[in-house]
Amino acid sequence: MEENTVKMINQPLLPFTFEIAESRTYKETAEHIRKMTVRGAPAIGAAGAYAMAQAVLSSGTSDIEKAEAELKSTRPTAHDLFAGIEYVKKAIVSDSTASIQDRARNAAEQFAQESIESCRRIGELGNSLIQDGIKVLTHCNAGWLACVDWGTALAPLYAAHRSSKEIFVYVDETRPRGQGARLTAWELHNEGIAHAVIADNAAGYFMANGSIDLVIVGADRIALNGDTANKIGTLEKAVLAQRFNLPFYIAAPLTTIDPQCVSGRDIPIEERSSDEVMFRTGLAHNGRIEKIRVTNPGSDILNPAFDVTPAELITGIITPRGIIKPEEVEELTRYQMPDGS
Amino acid sequence: MEENTVKMINQPLLPFTFEIAESRTYKETAEHIRKMTVRGAPAIGAAGAYAMAQAVLSSGTSDIEKAEAELKSTRPTAHDLFAGIEYVKKAIVSDSTASIQDRARNAAEQFAQESIESCRRIGELGNSLIQDGIKVLTHCNAGWLACVDWGTALAPLYAAHRSSKEIFVYVDETRPRGQGARLTAWELHNEGIAHAVIADNAAGYFMANGSIDLVIVGADRIALNGDTANKIGTLEKAVLAQRFNLPFYIAAPLTTIDPQCVSGRDIPIEERSSDEVMFRTGLAHNGRIEKIRVTNPGSDILNPAFDVTPAELITGIITPRGIIKPEEVEELTRYQMPDGS
Repeated sequence: MEENTVKMINQPLLPFTFEIAESRTYKETAEHIRKMTVRGAPAIGAAGAYAMAQAVLSSGTSDIEKAEAELKSTRPTAHDLFAGIEYVKKAIVSDSTASIQDRARNAAEQFAQESIESCRRIGELGNSLIQDGIKVLTHCNAGWLACVDWGTALAPLYAAHRSSKEIFVYVDETRPRGQGARLTAWELHNEGIAHAVIADNAAGYFMANGSIDLVIVGADRIALNGDTANKIGTLEKAVLAQRFNLPFYIAAPLTTIDPQCVSGRDIPIEERSSDEVMFRTGLAHNGRIEKIRVTNPGSDILNPAFDVTPAELITGIITPRGIIKPEEVEELTRYQMPDGS
Repeated sequence: MEENTVKMINQPLLPFTFEIAESRTYKETAEHIRKMTVRGAPAIGAAGAYAMAQAVLSSGTSDIEKAEAELKSTRPTAHDLFAGIEYVKKAIVSDSTASIQDRARNAAEQFAQESIESCRRIGELGNSLIQDGIKVLTHCNAGWLACVDWGTALAPLYAAHRSSKEIFVYVDETRPRGQGARLTAWELHNEGIAHAVIADNAAGYFMANGSIDLVIVGADRIALNGDTANKIGTLEKAVLAQRFNLPFYIAAPLTTIDPQCVSGRDIPIEERSSDEVMFRTGLAHNGRIEKIRVTNPGSDILNPAFDVTPAELITGIITPRGIIKPEEVEELTRYQMPDGS
């Protein structure tokens, strides 16, 4: 945030166009979250926090509840969004001597800074899982684009690469929106890490022939029993990892844990527009970004955006406070939540 | 085949443009098989048989070996292609009194007719697995487009629909080439069968929430121990079906069984061009079919076209001679192969 303006990388245009989108009001920021200009659980958490600050900066206390309601309605699954909003709201009602504007702005900044530190720490801790020469599968994008910096699932890979370990990453394309093919591949390319994009359908093939040693993905919401919602297709990879005896790790900051969700059954799953499956956007020969229809006209489409991986399929969760077993999530939340509760 | 011309639906253009492609020589037919103008194991089996007939019709015996070699090099995985070529070759060297041209043409016609009858019978037998109100998942396209008529995996669904059973079909998009989203969806739409296209990543989600009762897919090659090669992603669906206790059926004619393959390890897997993952083809706003780039430039791509599902994950194989267990494949081949061997 600079002055009252939130700036974010316009992710739907990547990797073909790099553009910074700006929003001057909480309503604009909400719209950017909804249409996924900014996406990735930690990144929309920070965007939610900044949007709450924008509401306070422009209208003091009068818009707080409206802003909260509108922001929470943008994306139902990622818990970080709710954590970011609550974090700023708590600061607003605190009995600090600072002005409400300063409190809101500082809280949003602090939330974003803590997010960066959390991700850096996930990288540092997760690096212990990465052996030299390892081949890793990841799904969707849980890199720095999905966060304020560093990433979640990709942070351990970046830490490993910086400590001179040789790694290779299989990148699931991640239909329908192609975050793997577009965003993770772009990040890894920028970081100079060897990788290959594969169709989502090919992960099982590469697991079966011994090409994959480890699976790491991010998370959108983690329930107290360790059940984890993440991008649609994550459940498929987790089931495959179990079949082929591969370790399957989730990487996430504490803001992704929802103490209100006892199990995965409590996590709401976002249904997104059928357009995401029906159309594909990419770079045309003429250098423009174009949208083409790829499914049969007249056919129905179903487009759940997330699925829930049961705790029993998760080897461990890489958090900023340590790599824990899924059954240890509840214990972790008892005394270490990011808002100090 | 009309006169010496083989006619086939130009499948890469579907469902946006319906066009009949023609080939006047075995070389042209081979090229159509290679670039997948015609695809689907039984359909390329018939195309291979007709192409052999074309070679004989134009040059008698002189081109037979060249044609055989060229045709067999087009697509390495689907066994039906080899079966179709061998079927016509056997007829050519038979001691019939008919001319070699007549023998070749008749053998190709007979192979195609037997393929239709096999698929019709697969539908009839497979219909016994389809309960009224059932919800079925299928992957790729194993319908009439993939065959001379009826289909393999879709044949039981067509038979069920014609016997007034209510069914619903979840259609995997089937990246990279989108045969589910383009071809299966188009077939089902034409047949008036309720269906929805889903991202390949979403099959696990719908299995986990109880929306799917049964999985049926086709096959490209079946080994003697029942291991089955089919479109990339089939293995993923089979592993998921086991996890969620769903019956997983393969539907295939006898020409898909390869008596030379003892197990799935003997089945060669075709690696196709990275362009299939890198680009997507579809209908643009201007009404033209356009190709757009959907992956990060500079990123490597790996594109295996098939995977092997181990026999232990297969509930049964719907063949024209009955629904068998995968462990019964070898027995079936002992006395019932389509070339009478």
